[in-house]
Amino acid sequence: MIVMEAHASQTQVRAVVQRVRQLGFTPHVSHGRERTIVGVVGHETDTDLDSLGALEGVERVVRVLHDYPLASRDFHPMDRTITLANGAVLGGGGVLMMAGPCAVEGIEQLEEAAACVAAQGVRVLRGGAFKPRTSPYSFQGLGEEGLRMLRSVADSHHLMVITEVLASEDVELVARYADVLQVGARNMQNYRLLQACGAVDRPVLLKRGLSATIDEWLQAAEYILSGGNQQVALCERGIRGFEPSVRFTLDITAVPVLKRLTSLPLVVDPSHAAGRADYVGAIARAAVAAGADGLLVEVHPRPAEALSDGAQSLDPIAFQTLVGEVNRIASAVGRAAP
Amino acid sequence: MIVMEAHASQTQVRAVVQRVRQLGFTPHVSHGRERTIVGVVGHETDTDLDSLGALEGVERVVRVLHDYPLASRDFHPMDRTITLANGAVLGGGGVLMMAGPCAVEGIEQLEEAAACVAAQGVRVLRGGAFKPRTSPYSFQGLGEEGLRMLRSVADSHHLMVITEVLASEDVELVARYADVLQVGARNMQNYRLLQACGAVDRPVLLKRGLSATIDEWLQAAEYILSGGNQQVALCERGIRGFEPSVRFTLDITAVPVLKRLTSLPLVVDPSHAAGRADYVGAIARAAVAAGADGLLVEVHPRPAEALSDGAQSLDPIAFQTLVGEVNRIASAVGRAAP
Amino acid sequence: MIVMEAHASQTQVRAVVQRVRQLGFTPHVSHGRERTIVGVVGHETDTDLDSLGALEGVERVVRVLHDYPLASRDFHPMDRTITLANGAVLGGGGVLMMAGPCAVEGIEQLEEAAACVAAQGVRVLRGGAFKPRTSPYSFQGLGEEGLRMLRSVADSHHLMVITEVLASEDVELVARYADVLQVGARNMQNYRLLQACGAVDRPVLLKRGLSATIDEWLQAAEYILSGGNQQVALCERGIRGFEPSVRFTLDITAVPVLKRLTSLPLVVDPSHAAGRADYVGAIARAAVAAGADGLLVEVHPRPAEALSDGAQSLDPIAFQTLVGEVNRIASAVGRAAP
Amino acid sequence: MIVMEAHASQTQVRAVVQRVRQLGFTPHVSHGRERTIVGVVGHETDTDLDSLGALEGVERVVRVLHDYPLASRDFHPMDRTITLANGAVLGGGGVLMMAGPCAVEGIEQLEEAAACVAAQGVRVLRGGAFKPRTSPYSFQGLGEEGLRMLRSVADSHHLMVITEVLASEDVELVARYADVLQVGARNMQNYRLLQACGAVDRPVLLKRGLSATIDEWLQAAEYILSGGNQQVALCERGIRGFEPSVRFTLDITAVPVLKRLTSLPLVVDPSHAAGRADYVGAIARAAVAAGADGLLVEVHPRPAEALSDGAQSLDPIAFQTLVGEVNRIASAVGRAAP
Repeated sequence: MIVMEAHASQTQVRAVVQRVRQLGFTPHVSHGRERTIVGVVGHETDTDLDSLGALEGVERVVRVLHDYPLASRDFHPMDRTITLANGAVLGGGGVLMMAGPCAVEGIEQLEEAAACVAAQGVRVLRGGAFKPRTSPYSFQGLGEEGLRMLRSVADSHHLMVITEVLASEDVELVARYADVLQVGARNMQNYRLLQACGAVDRPVLLKRGLSATIDEWLQAAEYILSGGNQQVALCERGIRGFEPSVRFTLDITAVPVLKRLTSLPLVVDPSHAAGRADYVGAIARAAVAAGADGLLVEVHPRPAEALSDGAQSLDPIAFQTLVGEVNRIASAVGRAAP
Repeated sequence: MIVMEAHASQTQVRAVVQRVRQLGFTPHVSHGRERTIVGVVGHETDTDLDSLGALEGVERVVRVLHDYPLASRDFHPMDRTITLANGAVLGGGGVLMMAGPCAVEGIEQLEEAAACVAAQGVRVLRGGAFKPRTSPYSFQGLGEEGLRMLRSVADSHHLMVITEVLASEDVELVARYADVLQVGARNMQNYRLLQACGAVDRPVLLKRGLSATIDEWLQAAEYILSGGNQQVALCERGIRGFEPSVRFTLDITAVPVLKRLTSLPLVVDPSHAAGRADYVGAIARAAVAAGADGLLVEVHPRPAEALSDGAQSLDPIAFQTLVGEVNRIASAVGRAAP
Repeated sequence: MIVMEAHASQTQVRAVVQRVRQLGFTPHVSHGRERTIVGVVGHETDTDLDSLGALEGVERVVRVLHDYPLASRDFHPMDRTITLANGAVLGGGGVLMMAGPCAVEGIEQLEEAAACVAAQGVRVLRGGAFKPRTSPYSFQGLGEEGLRMLRSVADSHHLMVITEVLASEDVELVARYADVLQVGARNMQNYRLLQACGAVDRPVLLKRGLSATIDEWLQAAEYILSGGNQQVALCERGIRGFEPSVRFTLDITAVPVLKRLTSLPLVVDPSHAAGRADYVGAIARAAVAAGADGLLVEVHPRPAEALSDGAQSLDPIAFQTLVGEVNRIASAVGRAAP
Repeated sequence: MIVMEAHASQTQVRAVVQRVRQLGFTPHVSHGRERTIVGVVGHETDTDLDSLGALEGVERVVRVLHDYPLASRDFHPMDRTITLANGAVLGGGGVLMMAGPCAVEGIEQLEEAAACVAAQGVRVLRGGAFKPRTSPYSFQGLGEEGLRMLRSVADSHHLMVITEVLASEDVELVARYADVLQVGARNMQNYRLLQACGAVDRPVLLKRGLSATIDEWLQAAEYILSGGNQQVALCERGIRGFEPSVRFTLDITAVPVLKRLTSLPLVVDPSHAAGRADYVGAIARAAVAAGADGLLVEVHPRPAEALSDGAQSLDPIAFQTLVGEVNRIASAVGRAAP
C-alpha cells in the first residue's frame, strides 16, 4: 500500500499508478479526505516495492502481507511435526525436552550430563562442539572431536543429538554426527548457512536473532524451507532489551504470535535469557504454559566449573525439579508430558 | 565502585580517594594489572556518587548495590500480602484475578461486565474512570461519574474496585470510591503522584513504565513505601520493544527477577502487551506458571463496541475459558486457584 | 485500513463494512489474491477504530494517517518560531543555546553558572528547582526558593529562564518565575500536566519520553496545542536503548523526521544522553549539523561537586569550547550562530 | 568483581575466594555494610569468570575491564589509518566518502553511478555483488559477475572498490576484485567469516550488528585483529529500535564513545538507518560533525528503479548537495574535505 503525501499532485499519483502497473501489479486508488492511497494487489515476494518510496509525492510504502509463503500457517494450516529416529516427536501436542551442557568439554563431563538428563526421561541431548563466542580468546569448542563424543555418549543412552552448526562448510560434517542441526541466534541471517541447511536431510532448529522481528525470523525459516528441507523448527531464546539484570528478555508473547502465523514447531530456550540458573525454572514453566512444543535447557554436572555459561546451567538436582514442574504444567494444559 | 582510566596518575587516584572520604564513605583502593579501582563502602542512597565521574582520570562509576531499602527482600524477606475488605488476598500463595472493562463506558456495560466476572468467581473489578489516552481527541473516561458507577456496581456483586488514579490531586477523590489505586505505566515516574499515594490509606498497584528498568521500578515503589504506605504491589504489563506485531513485549523474566529482589506482591496484566484478545490466554497462563500473584485482565461484554482497547478485551466466553486454564495452571504449581 | 484474515468469509467482510459505516466512515473494499482489505476513509482522531480488531475475521487494523492535526506540518507548513522577552528566538533559522546547571543548588553556584554562560553569549539560563529523581532519597531540588534564585540571577545577567515543571498544580507557580516551562521526559504522557500547560501563557519545551515513538510525542504536543497554547517546542534528549556505556541513545534521526512531520521548533539536549561530559560536544555538534533549532546543555562551575548529573555537566572551559564549535557548525550549514 | 548476596555466609565467601585463586587470579575481599564484594585482578580474557555466578551465595559477576586488547586505544593510543592503493586514506583527520549503488544491477547502472560519484571527487566506489536479503525471494546480487563489473568500472574511473563478503568461503574470491572487504551487520558475529578476514591482506570494514553493544562490536573486531589483519575499520549503520518511522536508529553517541575506546577508523552509513533519501543528508552531516572518519552512502542513477534499497538511495543531484554540505561541515570542524 502506497501512502501519498498530503499535497501530492494528480500527476504524481498517476506516475505511481503507472509504475505499479509496469511492475505487474494491479493498483487500487483510494482518495481520502486528506490523502490518496494506492493499494497494490499481487504476489509481492519477488519485487522490491519499497523502491516506490523514491517516487515524488510518496510518503511511505506500507507492507500488509507476509513474505514467507511456505512457513505460514495459511499455506500449511495443520501443526507440523518432526519425528526423530528414536521416536521422539517435536510438535503436535507433546512437549519435547532437549537438555545437556552448553559446551562439550570432555568425555567425562558429557557422560555425566547425559546420564543425568536420560535419568529424567529426556530423549534428546544438547551440547556444543562448535561454539560461537563473543571473544576470540574464549573457549571455542572441541570441534569434530566434540561431535564424536556427542554421538558416542548419546548412543550409549539412546539419546538423539542436537548441536550447533556455525558455517555452511560445516553442515555436512555436523550432519554426519547429529540428528538435529541448530542454527544459533547470531547466525539467523547467515543466509549461506541457511541455504546449506535447506539442502541437507536433517531437521533444523532455527534460533531467533537477538533483535530479529518475527517477520524476519519467519523469512529466515523460509530460506531453509524454500531450499527443500521441510523439517524446520523455531527456537525463541530471548531478545536484546534494556534491562541490565538479565542477559536477554525472553519474548513469551512470541509464542502465541508464532502459533497463529506459522504451523512450524516452536521451542523455547529458557537458559540463555535467564543468565542465572535460579530464573530458568520460571521461564521454562511459562514457556510450556504459553504453548511451546519443546524446551532446550542447559544442564551441567558441576556448573561452577563450566567452560561456558556456567551461571545459567542447571545442576542435576535443579534439573530434576524442573522436569517435575514442567510435567505438571504440561498435564494442566492438556499436553503429553515431555 | 570507581574505575580509573588505564593511564590515571597517582595524583588522580589520590584526589578520588580524598573526595570519597569527604562525602563520608570509606574508600578501598585496589591496583589491578591495568587499572586501579576504588571501591566505596557506605550507605549510598542519599548522595550522588555519579558526580565523581567528573573527576580527572575516572573512567566510570559502577553501582553495585540497590537503592530501594524498603522494597527489597533483604529488608523484608517474607512474601508480603495485601488483604482487601471482602477477604480477597494478593500475595502469599494464591493467584488473585482482577478483571473488568478497560474503561467504564456506562452503567449497563459495567453491570454486564461485573456480572460476567463475578460469575467466574472473580472478587476484584477493574475499570477506568480516568483514562490516560495517547491522543487528546480520544475518549478520556467518565471521571467521578464513572467512579460512582464502579462503586455501586461492584457493591451489588460483592466485588472490590481497582481503578487508575492519574494525578496527585485526584488521589483523595479516587480513594473515596476505590479499594485499590492503580498507578499506570505512563505515571510510574510521576513522583508527585507516587508521594500522594504514599500518604493515603489504600493499597496501590504500581505498573511498570514502558521502558523502566527493574531498578527504576523498585525505586518508584520506594517513593510510596517511604511515604508510609506499606500496601504496594507491582504490575508487569509489557515493555516497549521492536516487534511490530504486538503492542508491548511482556517481560516474563521480570517475574523470577522480582521474586528474588523484592517480597512485594506481583501482578501481571496480559491484556496490554497482547494487543489482541487471542494472545491474552497464553500470556496469562505463562504469568501464573512463572509465579505471578495475580492477573489484571480486560473483559468487555461486546469488545467490538468498546470505546477503548476493544481489540484486546476478552468477551465473556473467552474469559470463562481463561479462568479455567489459569485455575489448572495454579493447581499444577501448587497455588490456590484465583 | 483493516486487513482481513486469509480465510475470512464474505459474511465477516460484510460485518466489518457495516460496522465501519455505523461509525460514520466510508469503507473501500479491495479483494487481493490472498486477502481482502477494507480501507476506511474519514477523520479518525476521535474514534477508536482499533476495536474493529475484535470483529471476527479481522487480522489487524493498520493506521495510515497521523493523529496530531495541530502539530503537523500539513496544518502549519511554515516553520514556527517562539520569541522570548529578551529577543531570543527559537526556530526559524538560528540556533538557540540554553545552558546552566542541572539543579539550582544555591545562589553562589547559580551566579557562577549564569556568569559563565552569559559570557559565552547565551541568552537563556536553564536550572532545575523541582527535580524528578529516580530515588526518593536523592536531592529533590530547592522548590520555590530555587525559582526565586533563578529569576533574580537571570535578571541580573539579562537572561531568560527555562525550568522544569513537575505537576499540573505547580504550573501557575513556575510560570510566575520562568519564561519557558519544561516538561521532562518522565512526564511526556502526564496528560493532566500537559493540559495545564495548554492553558498557560508561556512557551513549553516538551521533552521526548524515554521510549516514546515520534507519533506519541507529537500527540503529547497536541494536548498542549489543543488546549490553546501554540508556543510549543520539542526536545530530543535520548531514548532508552540496550547499550550500557551511555545513559541514553540520542536519536539523531529524529531530527530530520520531525522536521518533515512538524513545523514546531526542535531542541536537542546532548547532556542527558551522553552521561559523560566528554561526549557532550560531539552530540551537540551533530545535533546542529542535522538541523536542530536549539541546544539545552548542562554547565556547572565545578561538576565534581554537583548534587546531580555532575558526570555529564560541562565545566566553564569545556562549555567555551563547545560554543565555538557549535558556532562554526551553524555557520557551515547556513544558520545564524547561537 | 563478584558481588555476594546480602546473607552470604563466611564459608560461601571462602569458596569463592578459593575458586578465584584456582583460576589463577588474585582475589581482593572487601566487606561492605551490607554485602561482601570479591574483586578479581588478572588478565580476564581467556577464562569464563561468569561461571563463578553458579557458586552459592554469589549474587552476580560484574565485568569491569574490556575484552578487546588489540582494538583498544589503551593498546594503540594514536589514531590508526588505512591507506588505499589510489592514495585515499581512512582515518587520521580527513573524511573519506565511499559511495555507489546498494547492489550492482548491471554494467550501465554501475557506470552511471560511478561517473556520478567520481564527478563529486569520490575515490571509493561501493556496490554489492553478494546481497544479504531478508527474503529468499528477493534479488540476491550478481555474484562474481558483479565483482567483475565493479572492478572494471572502478578502474576506468580510478576508484577503489568496497564490497560486501557474505561467507568465509568467498573471502578469497572477493579479495581478488575488491580493495576493501565489507562485513555486513547481519554477519558481525559470524566468527568464521571474521577469522577468514583476519587472514587476508585487505582492509576490512566491519559493520555493527543490529543490536550489538559496543563491547561486542569491538570484540568482533578483535577476531580480525587477532588473526593478524591490522587493517580494520568500524561502520555504524543504525541499531534496531522501537521507532516505526525509520528503518534503524543511527547511534550518533557511538561516535564519541568509540573514539575514546578505540583508535580504529570509524565510518558512518547514513543510508540504511534513514530508510528515506530525504533523511540521509541530515544524518551524514551529523556523523561528520560528531567525528566520523568516513561515510558510506547509497547513490543510484534512478532510485525508483533500484532492485534494492531504492527508497533510501540518493539520486545524482541529491548526492551533489550532500557532498557540498559534508565538505562545509568537515572544514568547520577542522578536517580535510572528503
